Formats: sequence, structure tokens, C-alpha cells
Amino acid sequence: LCGLVLKIWRFLYNAWNLGVAEPKKVIHGVKVGLSLLLVSFFYYMRPLYEGVGGNAMWAVMTVVVVFESTVGATLCKCINRATGTFLAGSLALGVQWIANKSGETFEPIIIGISVFLLASATTFSRFIPSVKTRFDYGAVIFILTFSLVTVSGYRVDRLFELAYQRLSTVAIGTSLCIFITMVFCPIWAGSGLHDLIVCNLEKLADSLDGCVGECFKDDKAKLGNEEGPSKRMQGYKCVLNSKATEEVMANFARWEPGHGRFNFRHPWKQYLKIGASMRNCAYCIEALNSCINSEIQAPDCLKKHLSDVCMLLSTNFSEVLKELVIIMNTLTKSSKIELLIGEMNFAVQKLQDSLNSVPNSFIGPTVSTIQAPNEANRETIPKTAIPSLMDVFPMASLVYLLIQIAARIEGIADA
Amino acid sequence: LCGLVLKIWRFLYNAWNLGVAEPKKVIHGVKVGLSLLLVSFFYYMRPLYEGVGGNAMWAVMTVVVVFESTVGATLCKCINRATGTFLAGSLALGVQWIANKSGETFEPIIIGISVFLLASATTFSRFIPSVKTRFDYGAVIFILTFSLVTVSGYRVDRLFELAYQRLSTVAIGTSLCIFITMVFCPIWAGSGLHDLIVCNLEKLADSLDGCVGECFKDDKAKLGNEEGPSKRMQGYKCVLNSKATEEVMANFARWEPGHGRFNFRHPWKQYLKIGASMRNCAYCIEALNSCINSEIQAPDCLKKHLSDVCMLLSTNFSEVLKELVIIMNTLTKSSKIELLIGEMNFAVQKLQDSLNSVPNSFIGPTVSTIQAPNEANRETIPKTAIPSLMDVFPMASLVYLLIQIAARIEGIADA
Repeated sequence: LCGLVLKIWRFLYNAWNLGVAEPKKVIHGVKVGLSLLLVSFFYYMRPLYEGVGGNAMWAVMTVVVVFESTVGATLCKCINRATGTFLAGSLALGVQWIANKSGETFEPIIIGISVFLLASATTFSRFIPSVKTRFDYGAVIFILTFSLVTVSGYRVDRLFELAYQRLSTVAIGTSLCIFITMVFCPIWAGSGLHDLIVCNLEKLADSLDGCVGECFKDDKAKLGNEEGPSKRMQGYKCVLNSKATEEVMANFARWEPGHGRFNFRHPWKQYLKIGASMRNCAYCIEALNSCINSEIQAPDCLKKHLSDVCMLLSTNFSEVLKELVIIMNTLTKSSKIELLIGEMNFAVQKLQDSLNSVPNSFIGPTVSTIQAPNEANRETIPKTAIPSLMDVFPMASLVYLLIQIAARIEGIADA
Repeated sequence: LCGLVLKIWRFLYNAWNLGVAEPKKVIHGVKVGLSLLLVSFFYYMRPLYEGVGGNAMWAVMTVVVVFESTVGATLCKCINRATGTFLAGSLALGVQWIANKSGETFEPIIIGISVFLLASATTFSRFIPSVKTRFDYGAVIFILTFSLVTVSGYRVDRLFELAYQRLSTVAIGTSLCIFITMVFCPIWAGSGLHDLIVCNLEKLADSLDGCVGECFKDDKAKLGNEEGPSKRMQGYKCVLNSKATEEVMANFARWEPGHGRFNFRHPWKQYLKIGASMRNCAYCIEALNSCINSEIQAPDCLKKHLSDVCMLLSTNFSEVLKELVIIMNTLTKSSKIELLIGEMNFAVQKLQDSLNSVPNSFIGPTVSTIQAPNEANRETIPKTAIPSLMDVFPMASLVYLLIQIAARIEGIADA
């Protein structure tokens, strides 16, 4: 029993923390409660109740099922629900009319077959990708309304009234949802997507910085503050795993009207492209990271030789990324970014040059030792070369990726 | 108009292809149609109809909303729906009783406040991760039933009967769904997850093979068949993007009873771990791939020097992976895998040895050229070193990852 109490207490504690961390979620909960309260007025007020009758429960149901945390998701579900109900209702009335005309024995057979066929076909269509992303919920509602109207048509006489009432209560529910979700503290999927991408860009810059810093850090500093930077370095893992979230959000963002700084036809698909490029960068950082954590370490002399150039390059990288963050936030094209990319490319060139000069400074001394070959030295050379060259390669690919991103962002800035 | 017809035709064509490629999805559609047909018998047959009355529509609704393509998802939704309905129904009856006792003026106020508070709290609780993964749907149903019962309690007199009928029709709907989904061609989330992981393992082996082969292929062969291997090489991209699918499936698989070769408490979480390790491998392949596609190519002499060892290593890799596939399929521990891992480690060792011998054979000639330094040669050395070393590094990390995977798989094989 004590364990159970402890468990519940911990659950509540977690919930409280979540609420404090993200007040948006609490607000969403309050909004749902508010709209349910409003909808239940249909029951409390006699004139309203007499207008729609016992079917007022459809309005309650619509509110509960349709209300989602972002405006885009709610709009998407509302439109789906309304369209699905309307289409299925009219189709069901047609089928019912035909069934009625064909006599009492055929009526259940015709209705049964039509329900079976339409339900199977619609359920199958939910697997088609283009339907799935946009009209998944609409298909469910279509099946639901169609089977309810046709099947109850067998027993209920005033079928037309039933369909009409269902449609009108759904309309009341959806319009209330849209009103509440857009007027009181709206949570936009589009803004959420934008913030996510910007935040991921920042994390990427941080972890790239941290990684390269880690690579060329002195051993003294390594023993010191381990916690802080390693947390920052893990930022890229969020980037790796954010694909599904981004896609869902972009899908909902398309349904949203213009809000804040975003127009109606804001190019949300571009955000997915940026996300993909960022994930490519994150793969590179992952590779870089695994080579930092590997056992073989570059000797200090080589590190020193390359550290200046690499640090310069990494500074350039994060400058470019941070400039991209600024561009994203202001949604304008910046001339500074081209300057920074130019600088970055120059730094890459410099790194390549200094790599080319490495063999001279290292093979120079090696020449003497090879003439007196000893085992220890033979092993030093490949090990020396490995980490530094490994650093270069992901970076070189990073540069290309960054340039790609930059080009894409410019496309957005135009839009 | 012609464009519209063309669009519709293309849509139907796509749908047909999908149906042919994955007959499971068609079967699922037919199953939904079948259960709707069965449920609508409640309307057609007079004795059944009189048992539940107009509330039979709740059974229809339950079937439409609850029926999912996998057994696990359907079970999860059924249990959620039944529990949510029961809890909310009893709670609503209690609130209704209190409200009834407190007089006519207070009744709507008490009901309104309770609906508002419970709806807000439950909606907020849907954001808590532990609730979200398991009881998301149950929470929706809880709000729905609670508000329906309390709010309509204000108008309907025989409230207890309403709650009872709702519960019994939900029970009819869910039991029918569970029956149909498990008896006719069941589609298990667990088997799906298993197949996905095995298929991803195979893809990983293929693309690793293809990658290394590409790396050390002769230029002649390169010009020839470009299509085949590049398609196989792209297999690892599926592995990269399968995280969300795996998580959803593992979540549903936990709800499923034992089926086929899997017991009830099959360690589905282990599959997620294997998936994560595979994604790590795929990151390495991504890095390897980007270095194959880079502009700087190793000179042929170095390639020849390393190609034998690397090919051997890659063969070992794919042997290990394919052995893992066999292990996964038979769900037994194999002694062969340890042998193969030992072989693989031996090959890694060999590769390291042959890398250590590279400087000898290459710096040997360089020694003479450095004494007469010319620009061309200086540039050759780092370029020579880069690709081969790059190949080694991801592989070395791959080996560690593979060993990790192997250890984990053994854990599963035990279970």
C-alpha cells in the first residue's frame, strides 16, 4: 500500500513538473474543459435544448473527440469531421431511398451489402499514403456516419431529420472548437515547427562547438568540468530523433490560416528539407563523436599543429549556424550569411593546406627514424594520422551540407 | 476535367498496386466491413433490437472507432475503451447522485464544475508520457462518457439504465472486434515488429556489403551496373528512419497475448534496443558512404594493398549479420555466432596490422621524394592516407556496435 501511495505521489509530482515546465499544456486542458462547459449549456437551457433535442450529445461528443492541442490539428479534424459527416450522410440517404423502393425483403440486404462494401473500401483507402496524411480521420467519420444513418434508417422513420440533426450538432461542436482554440491562447503547429527547427539549429551549433572543442582540449581541462559540455554535446541526438515530430507538425501546419509572422501558404515543406539537412549534419557529428571517444588518440604535436585551424573552422561553423538562426527568426534574407559562408570555405581551404603541410613536418622527423626502423615508431604514424584526418572528413562533408542548407534557407527567406 | 479523370485513375491505379503488394491491408478492410455487417444485425433482428434498443448504435460506433489493423492496437483500444467507459460511468453516476441531492438550483452548477475540472485534468494528463503511450485513448473515452452521462443526466430520468446500456453495447462492440480481429487472419503487431527488425538487419548487411564493395571496386566495373548495387546500398536509409514505427509497434505488441512463436511476456523492449544499435550502425554506414562519394579517391596501389583485408572484414560483417538474422528467426542461441564474432575480431586485427604496415610500403618510396621535395608528391600522401583510414574507423566502431548487438541478441535468445 505504501508503495502505491509513493507511486501516485511521484506521478503527481511528475505531472506538476510537466505543468510548470510547459504551461501551454495546462492551458490546453483548461480550454477543453471550457468548451465542454459551453457545449453542456445546450442541456441546461430549455430553449437551446428544444432546438436540437437529445441529439445535443453529438455536439458534446464532437468537442471531446475533435479538440487537439494545436490549432492546425483541431482545424484538420474539424474539416475532416464536417466533410465526412456531410458526404456520408447524403450518400446514406441515397442508399436508404433506393433500399426503401426495392421492397421489404431486399431492404436489409441492400443496406448490408452497401455498408460492407463502403466500409471495406474506405478502410483500405486509409492505408494509401496521400489519404492517410490528410484525410485519415475523415475516413473514419465517413464510415461511422454512413453505417449509423443507413443502419438506423431501418428502424427510425424520420431519417432525414436524424441526418439533419446530426449534421447541425456536428457543425455546432466544430464551430465552438474552432472558436475556442483560435481565440484563447492559440497554440499554432506552425510556430511550434518553426521553434523546433530553430532550437535544433542552435543545438547543432552547440554540439558541433562542443565536439571540436573536446577534440582539441588539453588533458587538464578534460578532468575538470565534464558535465556541462557533454550535455551540450548530446544536443545533436535530439536532431537525429525529431523526424517524426517534424512531419506531423508540418502536416498540421498546412491547415492553419496565416498567423503572426507566417502567411497562409508559408512553405512548410521547406522546414522538412532543413530538418533533413540538419539530420545529415547530425550523422556527421555522430561519426565525429565516435572517433573522439575511440581509444586511439592523436599525439599532442599533431593536435597542436591542427588545433588552430580546426578551432577556427568550428567557430566559423557555429557562426554560420547562428546566423541561420537569426535568418530563421527574422524570416529575411541576410547578406551577412554569404560573407560567413565565404569565410567558412576559406577556413576549410586553410585546413586542407595545413593538412598538406603535415606530412612535411611529420615525415621530416620520421625520415630519420625510418632509416633506423623501430617498432614503436611504425605504429605512431598511422595512429597520428587517423584522428586528425577523421576530423577533416566529416567537416568537409559538413561544409557541403551547410552550404546546401544555406541555399535552402535562402529559398525560404524569399518566400 | 480530363486532368481530374487522369488524377482519379492514377489514384485508383496506386491503390490497386498497394493492394497487390500488401494483401494484408485489403484483408483488414474486409474484416472491418464484416464486423460492421455483424453488428448491424442488431438492427435487423427484432429480438436483438429489443434487447438493447436505440442504443445499439453505440455498438456500431465502437466497432468503427476501435478496429485497428493490428491485434495489439485493437486490444489496446478495446481495453482502454471498456475501462474508460466503466470508470467514467460509475464516477458520473456518483456525481449525479450528489447533484440530485443538493437541490434544483445547484444541480447544473455542480455538474458544470465537475465536468470542467475532470475534463481539464484528464486532458492535461494525456500529455504525461507514461499515460500517453498506454492510456491516451482511454482518457478521451473517459472524458466523453463522463460528460455525456452527467450532462444528459440533467434531462434523462432513467440515468442508471442509460449508463448500463452504454456499457453493455460497448461490451458487445469490443468483444465482437476482438473476436473478428483475432480469428480471421490476425495481423500481429509483434510479428510485424519482428519482421521489420529482421528485414532491417538484412538491409544493413546488404548495404554494408555494397558499400565496401563499391569502395574497392575496379573502375571498369563502376561504369557497368550502377543501378543494382546502389539500390541495395540505400537499404540503410530505411534503418535510419524506422524509429517511430518500431516504437509504436513495440507499444502495441505489449498488449498482445502469446501467438505463434512469441510468448505473452516476450521482451519487446529488447527489439527497441536492437533497433537503436542498428541505427548506430547505419550512421556509420552513412559516414562511410559520404566518404565513398567524396571527390578525393585513394590511389590504386593503396586500394590493392587494403582491399583483400577489407573485403574479408566486410564478408565477416555480413556473415555475422546474417547469422543474427537466423538467430532472430529461430529465437534460439547459436554457438556459431560466437565463432563468427571471433573471426570478425580477428579480421579487424588483421586490418589494423596491415594498416600499420602501410607506412612502411608507402613512406619507403616517399623518403626518396622528400629529399627532393616537389609539390605534387606532398599532396599525394595525405590524399592517399585519407580514404583508407576513413574506411577503417567506421568499421572499427561498427565492430564494437556489432559485438554489442550480438550480446543483446543473446539476451533475447535466452528469453
